[in-house]
Amino acid sequence: MPDQPSIKPSNLDNTPWDHRWGFADTEFVLHEDGSVELTGSRYNLSGYRMYDFAPYVEEVVGVKIGLEDQQPEVARKPVDPPILNAGFCEAAKARFRNDQLSFDDRQRLLHSHGQTTTDEVYRVLYDRLGRFADMVFFCESEQDAKDIVALAKRHDVCLVPYGGGTSVSCALKLPESEKRMIVSVDMRRMNRIEWIDRENLRVCAQAGIIGADLEAKLSAEGLTCGHEPDSIELSTLGGWIATNASGMKKNRYGNIEHVVENITMVTPEGVIEQVAPLCRASIGMQPQNLLFGNEGNLGLITRAVIKVHRLPEVTRYGSLVFPTIDHGVRFLYDLAHGGPLPASIRLVDNIQFRFGMALKARTDSAFQALVDKAKKYFVTRIKGFDPHKMVAATIVMEGSREEVRHQRSSLYRLAKKYQGMPGGAEAGQRGYMLTYAIAYIRDFVAKFHIIGETFETSVPWDKITRVCDAVYQKTAEKHKELNLPGRFYVSYRITQAYHSGVCIYFMMGLYMKGIEKPDRVYGQIEHALREVILENGGSISHHHGVGKLRKDFMKQTLSSGSIEFLKRAKRAVDPTNVFGVRNNIFSD
Amino acid sequence: MPDQPSIKPSNLDNTPWDHRWGFADTEFVLHEDGSVELTGSRYNLSGYRMYDFAPYVEEVVGVKIGLEDQQPEVARKPVDPPILNAGFCEAAKARFRNDQLSFDDRQRLLHSHGQTTTDEVYRVLYDRLGRFADMVFFCESEQDAKDIVALAKRHDVCLVPYGGGTSVSCALKLPESEKRMIVSVDMRRMNRIEWIDRENLRVCAQAGIIGADLEAKLSAEGLTCGHEPDSIELSTLGGWIATNASGMKKNRYGNIEHVVENITMVTPEGVIEQVAPLCRASIGMQPQNLLFGNEGNLGLITRAVIKVHRLPEVTRYGSLVFPTIDHGVRFLYDLAHGGPLPASIRLVDNIQFRFGMALKARTDSAFQALVDKAKKYFVTRIKGFDPHKMVAATIVMEGSREEVRHQRSSLYRLAKKYQGMPGGAEAGQRGYMLTYAIAYIRDFVAKFHIIGETFETSVPWDKITRVCDAVYQKTAEKHKELNLPGRFYVSYRITQAYHSGVCIYFMMGLYMKGIEKPDRVYGQIEHALREVILENGGSISHHHGVGKLRKDFMKQTLSSGSIEFLKRAKRAVDPTNVFGVRNNIFSD
Repeated sequence: MPDQPSIKPSNLDNTPWDHRWGFADTEFVLHEDGSVELTGSRYNLSGYRMYDFAPYVEEVVGVKIGLEDQQPEVARKPVDPPILNAGFCEAAKARFRNDQLSFDDRQRLLHSHGQTTTDEVYRVLYDRLGRFADMVFFCESEQDAKDIVALAKRHDVCLVPYGGGTSVSCALKLPESEKRMIVSVDMRRMNRIEWIDRENLRVCAQAGIIGADLEAKLSAEGLTCGHEPDSIELSTLGGWIATNASGMKKNRYGNIEHVVENITMVTPEGVIEQVAPLCRASIGMQPQNLLFGNEGNLGLITRAVIKVHRLPEVTRYGSLVFPTIDHGVRFLYDLAHGGPLPASIRLVDNIQFRFGMALKARTDSAFQALVDKAKKYFVTRIKGFDPHKMVAATIVMEGSREEVRHQRSSLYRLAKKYQGMPGGAEAGQRGYMLTYAIAYIRDFVAKFHIIGETFETSVPWDKITRVCDAVYQKTAEKHKELNLPGRFYVSYRITQAYHSGVCIYFMMGLYMKGIEKPDRVYGQIEHALREVILENGGSISHHHGVGKLRKDFMKQTLSSGSIEFLKRAKRAVDPTNVFGVRNNIFSD
Repeated sequence: MPDQPSIKPSNLDNTPWDHRWGFADTEFVLHEDGSVELTGSRYNLSGYRMYDFAPYVEEVVGVKIGLEDQQPEVARKPVDPPILNAGFCEAAKARFRNDQLSFDDRQRLLHSHGQTTTDEVYRVLYDRLGRFADMVFFCESEQDAKDIVALAKRHDVCLVPYGGGTSVSCALKLPESEKRMIVSVDMRRMNRIEWIDRENLRVCAQAGIIGADLEAKLSAEGLTCGHEPDSIELSTLGGWIATNASGMKKNRYGNIEHVVENITMVTPEGVIEQVAPLCRASIGMQPQNLLFGNEGNLGLITRAVIKVHRLPEVTRYGSLVFPTIDHGVRFLYDLAHGGPLPASIRLVDNIQFRFGMALKARTDSAFQALVDKAKKYFVTRIKGFDPHKMVAATIVMEGSREEVRHQRSSLYRLAKKYQGMPGGAEAGQRGYMLTYAIAYIRDFVAKFHIIGETFETSVPWDKITRVCDAVYQKTAEKHKELNLPGRFYVSYRITQAYHSGVCIYFMMGLYMKGIEKPDRVYGQIEHALREVILENGGSISHHHGVGKLRKDFMKQTLSSGSIEFLKRAKRAVDPTNVFGVRNNIFSD
């Protein structure tokens, strides 16, 4: 059993994504015998038949899924003719190499959306997008960035920064109201590590580097950045900054705002950066602090200096089972305030716990089957856990052998107080592997008329139950009101613990067969859910960001004075709105 | 031996500071017998005769100090007649109570400076200030803040926010070029805790609350904020935010930017705040992030929501001695990257280590004397430590009994690797007590013609030696070049450890008798030192800020694009420069 989940470095040449999540070699398929398989060999979940998967889906959604009943994808995906700014095109062709500029329809379409299920992926696969990138520019250097920005400003062209394309907040959705030529600026050719400072454990990397590639390059040097958003295989360093990303191991490595020590951003009015990276300093107001979460509204991030760490001596997975979610939350609360928090700890609700079970191979070993059965008997009969109430925590511990030993013994001792029982390292690792597979599941179930989506929020500790209950009830209400078929699926996990609250990550599945414009219907429901999340004390977002999807809730997030300030700050660096992607408060 | 240093809650009525640091009941005095005593009973250092103090000073500065040779203080301190804006005064008198407005010369003078030694304290005690507050306004509510800002804007009056008055960067020095009426806005009447959220461990406090009072009020509830800048007895929550302050126990509680979850700032163009505090969220650009380190340039901070913690189960002091500073630094490097870091750890150089010894009482107990002698013999003879090279680390550990036990055993085990030896809890605690006494020492030695000052910087790990050497050499060079009498005193401690660097806190003493305008001469030297600090890889400041003292170095800190952006951001909230204190890039 390897200690690390198999995040393999990406290779852009092998990722003709065709608009879906992830890599072309990997998808869930339904076999004739009713089993489900993840193709390829990229993940630990890949290459075996899961017999409990389809029955699980059918149970939770309340309908049968079958090969004969698939939703047909749009075969030839429409792309509008490009809006071309002649002066800009001429100047760009004169300044850049041919292979840095693309007017190709497929490239344009690939750069015209992110990964939001309903407004983006659903539209491109089953409907049509509303606005398309008119050209794609492949940025290769800081000078390129400066020059493309200057040209865009001179010729009144709109630039949209593009990283991994994994936004799930419609931040990459192009505004239909934009009448200027839109150029998508793909940053992924800026993927080098510029320097490594081993003594101070800092690295300067170009902003277009993909997370998995960054980790692979660092790993070869005995180092790690440790920032692991679920999108790490595809998303870029610059995208992490633009989204204000969170990594699953933030307890050890910090979220992106703790990882980064210097950002270089090219704006239409100059370069924002510190002259040198700063470990901690009191320099007056720090413009850099405002760049986290800029969502493409200000400029092009070209590079960043980040903290790196020596590879940990040991990485250990673990898991705990608790009789109820309430036991789990109280355990987590104590752990967050007494410590030590392991690199990652996630608490999954009963529904997701059972989902994890459904992805297991039907075991070939009679002995292993016996062991599993005995385990189950012990937990449910001897300990009296209700299989429909029990929950699990998955754990990653990293550090020196001694620190990990200390963490483990503290954790398990505290867990006892809340009737927590160790569930084994394998169960823990399985939980983390699921992370990388979940988005593929979204695209799998979509074929069978199920819209699956995730959404997240940060919530104070004492509002966790309220928010989760409210989401569940509002979904039930909407499901009934809109007369949707089948059952609805809502589950959640608590993915991060902070001093004053947690991140809750919801997963939703709705069977939509026969519903007209199902993506719009889903959008309505999600909007209603965000309303109740905010009403009940949750935030607009923990790490996905606002983009266009959640723009309506900014007035419940920032004072009007703050919003006005941001509008003026934007004008300060981009008076003619070159960066017209219109996210967040800059939305139409 | 109490576990906590005796930070007593401040009581403003008892603090007629007369421009010096701290409380009127406390000062170092030189007795006829050559001993030095800290008067009063406020500190653990108070109330006994220190016989080694004066000889230590004489040794390091190379001159005799004596009662007969004191520098006379200006008896009647000059204050210029106020510039009065008639319209504003009339409107203010109509809107506010009489006791919220002061035109009194003493109040005006007290509000016309901070605690920078040379440009502020030295001038007011031994020379004269250049510009005075024309009125003092005591702000009592958010509505007061909004109204005074509106009045100032309408009548073109300059407002200067005033918290604890402890700035050491000339941030409170009033600009001589300011021709408008200057109103100092004293925030300290806004000192209430507005609410306590025990479950989520958050507190909303008014920004004028003094640190020690905040801690006293929280402590009564079984809580602590844990933010302990050295100025905690005097400085305010709002001042911490404005300065981007650091607390000595940041390893456990974070620096101010980690403590605060919401800031409310009243600006001339509206209120900047989040609608609710956020534990961690991705809301797009966060205006709040720009308010840390605003140095009074933008508006009035009226309140903040901060994280609080249950009082730790145990607090333990500790200390370690190392044969050389290099051993200590390597130990700290390993600790910072392997952990666990205790709440606080500080490494003092040999000079400060010996200074700590000099502040001891001459012990009355023959037995204790024997023990001390035996200790010293063991360290210097058996272990072979050179008393003029050995250094010490002082340590504060906080948390659960078990966590502290684990920290302690990890610490001491790691220390062995670098020949570190435990030095006892008492030595550790003594180190922390010194913190609160140091500023009083500055005012004590000033009487004897010694200008003493501290300055700090953050430095990457591999530049520590370079920066310290450069400071020492540049001081030597300047001391010679300027033909100053006696010897110069430079010592330092490493007060904070981070992933990529440390905070170095320097102390300097220069005997200036017979030197004309000694404060200007000292200013020249400090400027030259900051130059070499930056040249050798240090930063403009770790936690004191930039103010006016370090404004010349902003171009070596931020790109020109960043500076231009900040200027525009300032205009966005304060187009007519109501907040005209002119710190940092807004300096003349």
